[in-house]
Parts: sequence; C-alpha cells; structure tokens
Amino acid sequence: MGAPTLSFENEVFAKFAFYAGIVLLKTMIMSVWTARYRIPRKVFISPEDYGSKGPKTLTTDPDIERARRCHLNDLENVLPFVLIGFFYVLTGPDVGSATLHFRLFAGFRLLHTIVYMFVVPQPSRAIAFFVGFFVNISMAISVIRAGMF
Amino acid sequence: MGAPTLSFENEVFAKFAFYAGIVLLKTMIMSVWTARYRIPRKVFISPEDYGSKGPKTLTTDPDIERARRCHLNDLENVLPFVLIGFFYVLTGPDVGSATLHFRLFAGFRLLHTIVYMFVVPQPSRAIAFFVGFFVNISMAISVIRAGMF
Amino acid sequence: MGAPTLSFENEVFAKFAFYAGIVLLKTMIMSVWTARYRIPRKVFISPEDYGSKGPKTLTTDPDIERARRCHLNDLENVLPFVLIGFFYVLTGPDVGSATLHFRLFAGFRLLHTIVYMFVVPQPSRAIAFFVGFFVNISMAISVIRAGMF
Repeated sequence: MGAPTLSFENEVFAKFAFYAGIVLLKTMIMSVWTARYRIPRKVFISPEDYGSKGPKTLTTDPDIERARRCHLNDLENVLPFVLIGFFYVLTGPDVGSATLHFRLFAGFRLLHTIVYMFVVPQPSRAIAFFVGFFVNISMAISVIRAGMF
Repeated sequence: MGAPTLSFENEVFAKFAFYAGIVLLKTMIMSVWTARYRIPRKVFISPEDYGSKGPKTLTTDPDIERARRCHLNDLENVLPFVLIGFFYVLTGPDVGSATLHFRLFAGFRLLHTIVYMFVVPQPSRAIAFFVGFFVNISMAISVIRAGMF
Repeated sequence: MGAPTLSFENEVFAKFAFYAGIVLLKTMIMSVWTARYRIPRKVFISPEDYGSKGPKTLTTDPDIERARRCHLNDLENVLPFVLIGFFYVLTGPDVGSATLHFRLFAGFRLLHTIVYMFVVPQPSRAIAFFVGFFVNISMAISVIRAGMF
C-alpha cells in the first residue's frame, strides 16, 4: 500500500467527498433561501432589482439579514473545512477517526443552520458552531504537523 | 486505465484548472476594482486609511457597495465551484459533459460580473446567477452519489 | 519521475500543506477574535444572543467591525490562495520558486492581520495586502497557462 491519494478508491476520501458535498450543497442553498424572502417581501439589495416601479431607498428585513449572516458563517466555516479536508485525507488518518471528524462537522453544521434560521435560544448556536470549529482546528493541526516533517 | 487523478495529464482536470484559474483570477480582481473607486473618491472602510486629515465618520458609496456585493457573490459561488470541481473531476465524468459544466459556469460568471457592475436590467443578473448555481448543484449531486456508494 | 502529485511525498506539496494550514488556521481564529470582543462588550449580531434581558436594537462596535473586515479580507485572499495552490503544485514548479510563493503569501498575510488589528498606519496594510495578492496572481497565471496547453 502506497501513500494515501485523492481518489474515490480511497475509503477516507470517498467519505470526505460525501460529507463535503452535503455541506457545500447546504451552503449554496442559502443563496436561494435568501431569495425566497426577498421576492415576496420586495426587499432587494440592488436598486435595479426593483424594476422601474422601485422605491428610491433600499430597505432591509431582519429575516433576510439573518439568512445572510448564516450564509456568511458557512463561508467562514464550510469552505475552510473542505480545504483543510483535502490535506487531512492525504495525511493518512485511520478511517474511523477521519469519519468521526467528517460526521461531526457535517452534523453540527446542519444543526447550526436549523438553530440559526429558526432562532433556537442560545447556547445552541454557540455549541453547534464550536463543534465544527474544533473539528477544523484538529484537522489543521494534523496537516501542519504532517507538512512540517 | 486506472481511476481518474488530479493531474494535468488528465484532460478533464486540465480543462477544470483552466476555467477555475479564470474565475478565481476574476474574483481576486474584484478587490482591486473596489480600490479603484475608493482612492479617487476618498471613501474608505477603515479610519486609518484617510491618513491624518481624514473625516471623523466613515461614508459609503453606491458603486463601491455594488463592487463589494459582486465580490461577495463570487465568494459564495466561485469558491464552491472550485471545491466541488476537484471532487467532480475524480468521479470520472466524460470530457464533453465535464467541459460543458466548466464552460457554462465560467461564461455565465463573467457575464454575471458585467451585468452586475454595469447595472444591466433584471432578469439578466438572475439568469447569469442561476446558470452557475445549477452547474454547482449538478456537480454536487454527482459527488454526493459517488461518495455514497 | 512522473507527473507531480498531491501527496506529502511531494516536497512542494508538503510545503504547501504547511503554509496553507497556517493561514487557514489564522483565518478560522478570526471567528474567535470577534467573539472575544462581543461577549465582554455585549455587542451581538443576532437578537437571541442577548438572552431575555437584551436591548431592543442591535448595536455595533468599531473593534468588532474591524475584526469582521479582517476576517472577510482573509476569505477573499486566503481561500483563493489555497485553491489556486492545489493547481499550482500540479504544474510542477521547482521547489525554490514554489516555497518562495508560499512563504511570501503566509508571511505577509500574518503581517496583514497584525497591521489591521493593531491599526498600524497606511501604507502598511496596502503593502501586506498586495504582496499576497500578487503571489495569487502569479500562481493563477501559471495554472491558466498549464491548463491551456
């Protein structure tokens, strides 16, 4: 057996691809979630979106701002997860430990969106955030150590 | 022939690298596009940017806010495209179908920037956005299915 | 010797993994840096974060807005660096030139954060930004050329 590779024949990679696909899909769906409020409420972010009968000033809406914060939080956490994950797969972690990292991240990220969008009281969102955060830190440390030696 | 690899010897990967390079370059250029307005108009985002003779309050400018929204929209779409693309190349799509995905995404993303920055009336921007969005969704579904089995 | 691969056995990749790990870790730490101000100052971004005794209107704080801008600037620069870097490693650059790219980017990105957060006068931040920016442009051009032929 040689060095671990980025290939669906590598079990760790296949699991990573599955969970990374899920969280990236979820992140992208946030764009449409925002649009779902914008159109019926006629609250847009660019003047031309109102067409010719638009108001002169742009307004904001608390639900839309909430969806945008949730989306930005995904960019801050999901994109680093996928990037770090590519390196982490190549450090050759054992399947059990790697799968635990990926499942914890994906599970708590989905939970984070639910908690954020349906305004579940704190500390729910903080917990959902920090589980994903520590998964990323754990993988980053493995990668930095593997790259150092 | 073995499993597909991330290598310029793999034709699908080489095409992906080309289009991903183009859209990442375009995304990064948005930083400079913003600066191009900030400096002549003296509209900055951090107090120290004004130097010693600056105003006490920060102002905003509609063209700069437009460029920032366009940049953020790229982060929300281009970065997931490149991430999903790495996995998608490894699912072994045929060259024709993969190239179609990459070209549609890159073409409509460039169009999205032009439409956004030069304020072309809607639904131009919505169309340019959704073509790229559905390319990403299509690739994400392929990746999740490949990782599942 | 075959085509360069994404593997810790490839010296260029190992160096890339190390520096990418460092800058991704730094980017993720910005989330906690923001929280460090939010909690003692009780300045939150979502109404539920205040608990039952919260104010009716959300407030902002200049140090928190500064940390958020620094974080967004990382998303705009660090994430493209890591994405472009994967392709760049596969173009087969020589170790010296590749290491120079990675070190310059990582060094000036750390400097950018220090300069931004501790409000060092301009043009410090502009210089720190542009070094990283040109490293990214240089790698992107190599990748586009490799993908083209």
